[in-house]
Amino acid sequence: MSALMHLAQFAIHGPTDHSLATWRHPRTERPYRWDRPQLYESIAATCERGKLDMLFFADFNILLDLYQGSFAPAVRRAVQTPTHDPVPLAAWLGARTSRLGLGVTFSVSQQHPYYVARLFATLDHMTAGRIGWNVVTTANRHETLVGYDEVRGHDGRYDRADEFLDVCRGLWRSWEPDAVVEDVDAGVFADPSRVHPIDHAGEYFRSRGPLNVTRSPQTGPAIIQAGASERGRAFAGRHAEAIFAIGRDASDAAVYYDRVKSEVVDSGRDPDSCKVLFGLQPFVAPTESLARERLEEHNELVPLEGGLTILSGHLGRDFSQDDPDAPLPHFEAGGSHGILAMYESGDRPAPTLAEVAIWHGRSVGLPQVAGTAEQVADWLEAYLATAGGDGFMLSAYHAHGAVAEFVDLVVPVLQERGQFRREYTGTTLREHLRQTTPG
Amino acid sequence: MSALMHLAQFAIHGPTDHSLATWRHPRTERPYRWDRPQLYESIAATCERGKLDMLFFADFNILLDLYQGSFAPAVRRAVQTPTHDPVPLAAWLGARTSRLGLGVTFSVSQQHPYYVARLFATLDHMTAGRIGWNVVTTANRHETLVGYDEVRGHDGRYDRADEFLDVCRGLWRSWEPDAVVEDVDAGVFADPSRVHPIDHAGEYFRSRGPLNVTRSPQTGPAIIQAGASERGRAFAGRHAEAIFAIGRDASDAAVYYDRVKSEVVDSGRDPDSCKVLFGLQPFVAPTESLARERLEEHNELVPLEGGLTILSGHLGRDFSQDDPDAPLPHFEAGGSHGILAMYESGDRPAPTLAEVAIWHGRSVGLPQVAGTAEQVADWLEAYLATAGGDGFMLSAYHAHGAVAEFVDLVVPVLQERGQFRREYTGTTLREHLRQTTPG
Repeated sequence: MSALMHLAQFAIHGPTDHSLATWRHPRTERPYRWDRPQLYESIAATCERGKLDMLFFADFNILLDLYQGSFAPAVRRAVQTPTHDPVPLAAWLGARTSRLGLGVTFSVSQQHPYYVARLFATLDHMTAGRIGWNVVTTANRHETLVGYDEVRGHDGRYDRADEFLDVCRGLWRSWEPDAVVEDVDAGVFADPSRVHPIDHAGEYFRSRGPLNVTRSPQTGPAIIQAGASERGRAFAGRHAEAIFAIGRDASDAAVYYDRVKSEVVDSGRDPDSCKVLFGLQPFVAPTESLARERLEEHNELVPLEGGLTILSGHLGRDFSQDDPDAPLPHFEAGGSHGILAMYESGDRPAPTLAEVAIWHGRSVGLPQVAGTAEQVADWLEAYLATAGGDGFMLSAYHAHGAVAEFVDLVVPVLQERGQFRREYTGTTLREHLRQTTPG
Repeated sequence: MSALMHLAQFAIHGPTDHSLATWRHPRTERPYRWDRPQLYESIAATCERGKLDMLFFADFNILLDLYQGSFAPAVRRAVQTPTHDPVPLAAWLGARTSRLGLGVTFSVSQQHPYYVARLFATLDHMTAGRIGWNVVTTANRHETLVGYDEVRGHDGRYDRADEFLDVCRGLWRSWEPDAVVEDVDAGVFADPSRVHPIDHAGEYFRSRGPLNVTRSPQTGPAIIQAGASERGRAFAGRHAEAIFAIGRDASDAAVYYDRVKSEVVDSGRDPDSCKVLFGLQPFVAPTESLARERLEEHNELVPLEGGLTILSGHLGRDFSQDDPDAPLPHFEAGGSHGILAMYESGDRPAPTLAEVAIWHGRSVGLPQVAGTAEQVADWLEAYLATAGGDGFMLSAYHAHGAVAEFVDLVVPVLQERGQFRREYTGTTLREHLRQTTPG
């Protein structure tokens, strides 16, 4: 692990995140205005008070409809539905924060790189270099629902995404940092000899460039990734500066960590140029027993129907035809390969479908950790010692008090132990992540 | 005209707008940080102080490269280049304003309606109903530069845009206003029977829906349009709630106004359901002679190369092969038809290419009006009396003092005369525009 750990807060522009209990949790403040920016302003202010690296927004731009062949269960149980667009929210929060990094998810599958390169270069300018882009691909089925006819395999999606990022990188560099000269007397705004076409003609995209955005503070956003499959890891190894990973325990995490760092090295990069943040759903309370009580209380609020809905969506199988009390059936996953591996791996007794569904509905496989601030800090330290990771992605179990509990109780312990920053030392997200801005 | 006029402020997320002199104008404050949101926060605050209907952002997502077959002139003279993405800026300004409407341009040509419907429904939620969408189509040549292979004629672009908006409207209505029930005890977040698929399968798009965004305050953004061609007017007549139009004098404006209101009526709509805002570049000063001095000073700062670059881009012809001192040549316009008509219409002596280019570079055909606050107010009143329009789109000649000059000098005169609101009476952009929110 690095000398100092990295900490990010996970969020979704919607009523639930990893926990399907968030919206109905008794400690979530009422009225629960998840559809108003003010809630996220409070979360961001709390994160900034805790000197976190970033607030990170996941995204779901479709309605899950595999379970029971209908979107009704997703709507009824608020399973990734509704999810409002996180990009304008990240921009809004840029106006309400000054140091916090802002990570936001955006799928490459339905866009041209020029559009996305321009959007994120603009966000990078606006936030003075505090923006990160979580690059995701979207599965075929969902594209078809939206209206796209192209059918691509899992690996094909990543091949396209590789080229997508290459085009973006070219565009982000198309204006030299000193291209804008603003010679008022001569009437010369910028020097065209310092603005370059990229003339890209690849398998998936053509783009002449240059971008119509000047060189941004970070030369484009910090690149974040969350792929857990083999092809996803290769993509992350090539591009990511921060990875959001799920390891249900530290030894699973260690395997993942070694693999992804190998991919980073295989791509010719310094292993430290890609920080791995492991997901975690903390329950922090003044006493261990109270923390455990809160964990139990939370978990009982997750409905089985919700769990089956998200599991069906993630694994690409309608589980309404399967016996929930029988072991999780074996099948060829059509969705995110990494998630299936998480539940199938190891030599533990095979869990039932219902157990896996509820587990998935509680935290999408993130470890749940309950204890006092000191105990949670101990857990973090021990996890990283085994896993070798660089830090954590925190997921809240109620809004937004769980964020404040971690920031106000655990962060001071980590600071006291010299494991987390007391003040921001940089101004950009890349500096928070201790990464180098590309020239 | 309506009893009260409507006023909007035009802006671009870049160093110049209608005037190619903005960035080098001596009264533009230095350093000129057009690439930082703080400048636009100041402009928005000024607009809100003046009780304007909205701050409106145009957009250009390509680099003009027709003139001299190169993007160098556009870069050198800051001709619509750089232009940063206005959508995240509109979101940022949502956090910094409370009453002002925010209009933002977004091209449908490179997107699927699901994406755009979701983006604008989210912005409508975030701003509590203050968002407007200026729907534009992008010309083929520019799409090809970005990488799109489809070739569509001018009318075909609008046919696709018609269907695009129909899909968006369906998606914006796909959640009934009372669909979210948040029954915490029963664990029911929303009632699926009040969330509907749209099952659209048209000529250009397929979309099953529903949107994954709940019903927004305005049921989607207010629709703005700026088409001046015949097909553009038909599109506006069918969809627009506000139109940004250019009439170089009041009698030209009257012809346009009658035509577009006929289109509105032909589409089965109340003529008042579409407000026409005519563009204007005001020069306001304590004395008429000072105002005229400022107009002259401004106009001398527009370089011929810049004017030729924007004219080439707008009309789809490389004017570097034509004699600038000969009359504007006749040709089949490949770009925006309406602009060519503007310079060709009437029985005035034919202007030279250089004259048209400079004129275009000063204000893109917007009338320049110089005078005291009372004189400018008189001009506005007389223009509307002849043209029949509903209000104005103001374009600044220097940043951002020209906005403040209008708001602090002219608006009080209009208020005194009972021609403009003294306070906001509504909360949404549609209410500012005195339009009805769709059910």
